[in-house]
Amino acid sequence: MQTILSSATRKVVIGPDEPFCVIGERINPTGRSKFSEQLRAGDLSRIEVDVAQQVDGGATMLDVNMGVPLTDEARLLASAVTMVQGLTDLPLVIDSSVVEALDAALSVYQGKALVNSVTGEQDRLDAILPLVQRHGAAVIALPNEEDEIPDDPRKRLEITRKIIDVATGRYDIPLADIVIDPLAMPVGADTSLVRKTLETIWLIREEFGVNQVVGASNVSFGMPARAALGAAFLPMAMHCGLTAAIMDARTPSLVESVRAADLLLGNDAWGGRWIAAYRAKQR
Amino acid sequence: MQTILSSATRKVVIGPDEPFCVIGERINPTGRSKFSEQLRAGDLSRIEVDVAQQVDGGATMLDVNMGVPLTDEARLLASAVTMVQGLTDLPLVIDSSVVEALDAALSVYQGKALVNSVTGEQDRLDAILPLVQRHGAAVIALPNEEDEIPDDPRKRLEITRKIIDVATGRYDIPLADIVIDPLAMPVGADTSLVRKTLETIWLIREEFGVNQVVGASNVSFGMPARAALGAAFLPMAMHCGLTAAIMDARTPSLVESVRAADLLLGNDAWGGRWIAAYRAKQR
Repeated sequence: MQTILSSATRKVVIGPDEPFCVIGERINPTGRSKFSEQLRAGDLSRIEVDVAQQVDGGATMLDVNMGVPLTDEARLLASAVTMVQGLTDLPLVIDSSVVEALDAALSVYQGKALVNSVTGEQDRLDAILPLVQRHGAAVIALPNEEDEIPDDPRKRLEITRKIIDVATGRYDIPLADIVIDPLAMPVGADTSLVRKTLETIWLIREEFGVNQVVGASNVSFGMPARAALGAAFLPMAMHCGLTAAIMDARTPSLVESVRAADLLLGNDAWGGRWIAAYRAKQR
Repeated sequence: MQTILSSATRKVVIGPDEPFCVIGERINPTGRSKFSEQLRAGDLSRIEVDVAQQVDGGATMLDVNMGVPLTDEARLLASAVTMVQGLTDLPLVIDSSVVEALDAALSVYQGKALVNSVTGEQDRLDAILPLVQRHGAAVIALPNEEDEIPDDPRKRLEITRKIIDVATGRYDIPLADIVIDPLAMPVGADTSLVRKTLETIWLIREEFGVNQVVGASNVSFGMPARAALGAAFLPMAMHCGLTAAIMDARTPSLVESVRAADLLLGNDAWGGRWIAAYRAKQR
C-alpha cells in the first residue's frame, strides 16, 4: 500500500517497498521552553534553523506542531505551516489535538498533507475525519480510546479495525490514506512494552497492509544514550512493518540506522543509496 | 532453551532470556596476512592484543580459529586455545574445519567449549559429532549440505531438522547443546538475502526453540560503513530469535547496538546494564 503526500512541488511516497519515511520531529514546542516563549511572543524565526537542520539531516517530511498553551493555536499553526512551506518543499505532517488548528493549517497548506492525529473515540473520529476528507489529506490514526492505551496488541488491532471501518465507510477516505500509529511506549516504563509494540506492528501489517508510523523518540524517553536505543529500535520495527517515523532527523547515527535497515530489508536496490551516502560523507 | 558453556572458572549462558552472547571474531587469520605469517612462524604473541581488545570491548566469549594453510593446524589450535585460556576466563568457541584440529583443541580445553562447526553432510556429522559427545562440548551446526547453501528458509529448516535428529538421536547430544547458525549472507550479493536469513531464524526458533548464532560481519561484506550495517542487522535478528553472534567486539557502536536491543527486548531488567554501561563511559 502506498500513501502519497505532497507539497506544491514535491511528492513523497510512504510504502513497504519504499525507503523509510523520516519525518523530522523538531518543530514542536514540547519540552522546549525558549522556543515556546518565542512562539507565544509571535516570533517564529527559530523555525528556520529547525527546518535547515532537519533537511540537512535527511528528513523526507517534517512534522509541524504549535501546541503552546494560551495561544491562538489555529493562527499560529497556519502561520508556521505557511512559513515552513516557504523554506522547504518537503511535504508536512500537520500536528495538533485542536480541531480548529488542523482546519486552519489544512486550509493554507499547499499540496496533500498528513494529519496527526485521530484516535478511536467516536467524537474525535467525527470531528477530524470530515476535515481530512474535505481537504483531501491523509491521516495518522492511533488505536487508543478514552485516554486508555491498551497493552494488548489484539486490542490495538481491534481499535485499528474500528477506525479503518469508520474512515473508509462513513467518510470515504481511501485505506491508503490511513497511516496507523501502533503506539511506541517508553521502554523505561516497562521493558516488556517494546515487544508488544513490535507485535502490534506485525499484526496490523498482516491484517490491513497499511502504512505505519511511530513517534520513535518515545521509546527511549527517560533513558541515557537515547540515539543508540532509537537506532536499535527502528530496524526491528521496520522489519515488522513500520514504514515511517516521527523522529530525531538531526542525529546522523539515527538516520543512518534507518538507511542501513532499508538496504538490509531490500529497499535500496544494489545498495545505491547506501554507497552514495557513504561517498558524500567522505568528501 | 539454555546452552551453557564454561572455562575452568567462568560460566556463560546463551538463551532467549539472557543478554545476547557477543563472541569475539578477531582471533582468526582470515584476511590478516601479517597475523597469518606470524602464526606460520609459530609466533602467537599477537593473540594477546586480540584477547585484550575484545575483552575490553565487551565480548562474552571468544572464537579461536587457526586456519593457516600449510601448517600443523591441530598443534597450532591446541597451543592457541591453551594460550587464550591463560589470558582470559571467557569460554571459547573452537573454530576449525579440520577434525583433528578440533580434537586436539578440545583435548586441552579447560571447561565446556562450543565447537564451530558441523554441516549437514552425513560424513561431517559422523566425523564431528562423536568428538562433541566425547568431550562434552556444545556444537554450532550450519544447515547446508554439499557446498550448497539453500536460499529457501524452509529448506534450511529441513536440514536443521536432519542435523538435530542425528545429533540427539545417534550421538545423544542434548538439544540444548546444539546451536544453529542459520547462515547470514552478504547483503551486497543479493539484497533479498537478509530477509531470508531473518525468516530462517524465526522459523527455527518457532520449530525447535534452540539457540542461534551467526557470523554477523558476513552481512556487510563488501559494503562501506560495515559497523552501521551490523548495528542495524543484529537488533532485527535478535528480535527474530538470534541469541549469539560471532562478531566484531572491538567496535563500540556494534556492541552498543546489541545491548540496546537487549534492553528493548526485555533482557535487561530495569535497564540496569544499559544505565551502568552509560555511567562507566561517562567516567
